[in-house]
Amino acid sequence: MTLTAAQTSSDLPIMRTVEDLRAQVAAWRREGLTVALVPTMGALHDGHLGLVRRARELADRVVASVFVNPTQFAPHEDFDRYPRDEAGDSAKLASAGCHALYAPTVRAMYPDGFATAISVGGPAEGLCGAFRPQMFGGVALVVTKLFLQALPDVAVFGEKDYQQLMVIRRFTRDLDIPVRVEGLPTVREADGLAMSSRNAYLSADERARAPELNRALTAAAEALARGGEADGALTAIRSRIAEAGFGTIDYVELRDAETLEPVTAVTRPARLLAAAWLGKARLIDNVPVSPAG
Amino acid sequence: MTLTAAQTSSDLPIMRTVEDLRAQVAAWRREGLTVALVPTMGALHDGHLGLVRRARELADRVVASVFVNPTQFAPHEDFDRYPRDEAGDSAKLASAGCHALYAPTVRAMYPDGFATAISVGGPAEGLCGAFRPQMFGGVALVVTKLFLQALPDVAVFGEKDYQQLMVIRRFTRDLDIPVRVEGLPTVREADGLAMSSRNAYLSADERARAPELNRALTAAAEALARGGEADGALTAIRSRIAEAGFGTIDYVELRDAETLEPVTAVTRPARLLAAAWLGKARLIDNVPVSPAG
Repeated sequence: MTLTAAQTSSDLPIMRTVEDLRAQVAAWRREGLTVALVPTMGALHDGHLGLVRRARELADRVVASVFVNPTQFAPHEDFDRYPRDEAGDSAKLASAGCHALYAPTVRAMYPDGFATAISVGGPAEGLCGAFRPQMFGGVALVVTKLFLQALPDVAVFGEKDYQQLMVIRRFTRDLDIPVRVEGLPTVREADGLAMSSRNAYLSADERARAPELNRALTAAAEALARGGEADGALTAIRSRIAEAGFGTIDYVELRDAETLEPVTAVTRPARLLAAAWLGKARLIDNVPVSPAG
Repeated sequence: MTLTAAQTSSDLPIMRTVEDLRAQVAAWRREGLTVALVPTMGALHDGHLGLVRRARELADRVVASVFVNPTQFAPHEDFDRYPRDEAGDSAKLASAGCHALYAPTVRAMYPDGFATAISVGGPAEGLCGAFRPQMFGGVALVVTKLFLQALPDVAVFGEKDYQQLMVIRRFTRDLDIPVRVEGLPTVREADGLAMSSRNAYLSADERARAPELNRALTAAAEALARGGEADGALTAIRSRIAEAGFGTIDYVELRDAETLEPVTAVTRPARLLAAAWLGKARLIDNVPVSPAG
């Protein structure tokens, strides 16, 4: 297979089986090339393409995976209606310079008799882990499988799912998976809204209100960096997004940037994280908080 | 590091860290050599050395690990009194032609902040899994770590821990760990007793009675292969080992040889498995059962 940097969607190789994936990676290895993996659930937007571009800086060849992973959705969640568009995804990946797409079937990933689960404590506790108890175990399982199927040098994930990134770092280290995990700062729309496949669930009116989540977090982070007090900052975020029309607020929290342990004062790098519902969309966002000084 | 086939205990290299282990394996890889791993909990006997000899047939270089893994012992079990003898183990490994010993510390394997667990259903259900609910999760965790630390071509385990072997095969496949898992038939004393580090817990009188477990299993397997009926075979095993002085019988069961699902008739390869207490020792054993015909 000859690969060139400027591919069109029609010649982006698509691999369906772990055997094909490993054959491709082995072929690259024999040429002395390094390999990056960008795991996604498809429905790709510019945030994902930012991950591909970052991966191209980190390795010679980039394989993106598209797999809507059933084990990270609870029965009542949006697995069935999660947006899927392989042709569109393939074209976008090619335009971003991705070298191959790995899109396995659910049956290939979880064949009959599958019997293994992974659970993560520590950074997986609280925040989204409290509201979606199934999710991080499912993420850990599928990312472990993808890592061990591809054995890339490096894998790139977005900071938009900040807790997920910390969870992936945790189990990758704990299980001694020989893959480097890199995070990329959240890619945002011009008005600050974090790019997300679930933004497609927003009505036009909701879309106009959605950036208030990021504005509220950013304002609070600035207040904290100026020496503001944590409780006041969290209350200000809640008030501001409620006024903007958000419904249920799952959480608004201040956590340590690395361990994700709850903190009440910013003495080292921290993170403000929030999840709240706007119409049918559950939006999440997070911003870094520097110690005042 | 220069390694020769005929080593003495004094020059068997001992690695304490994953970095040293990976450096050694990488050095072998650069020479084009294949690598086998033999994971053990130490207190080595001829059964373990059989694993090393088999590993030498399967790969160019053999590294044995010795690690008494705390996560597979319940609080009331024998983690603290489990026999440990690194100097003796090292000498025995060298005599069997092992090329290196990996003996990490508990702290290196499970540092502060460790937060990941693995659970396995399927073949882990029932049998020892019912009596030692902690064990197979702990085994899955430590074997996954050892596999991903060393990334050997092949790893060798004894059929004496038959359920463990099937569990390891299951999660290795489920997690796509790129390591081939090989089983070795149980190595036995001259009188048929399966070799086990826990045989050291037996008094002289108990040691004389212990082989009845294997004799009872073997007789029952022969009866089944002649077309005997399963319930009668299981009852015969229980009676015979009770008469021999065994105390609590944890289980005596007939299972499918591959899936370990309970079976009531032998229509394809099956396995008779038993666990029973003799004094302070919990002995386990198992034998293959061929379909009658």
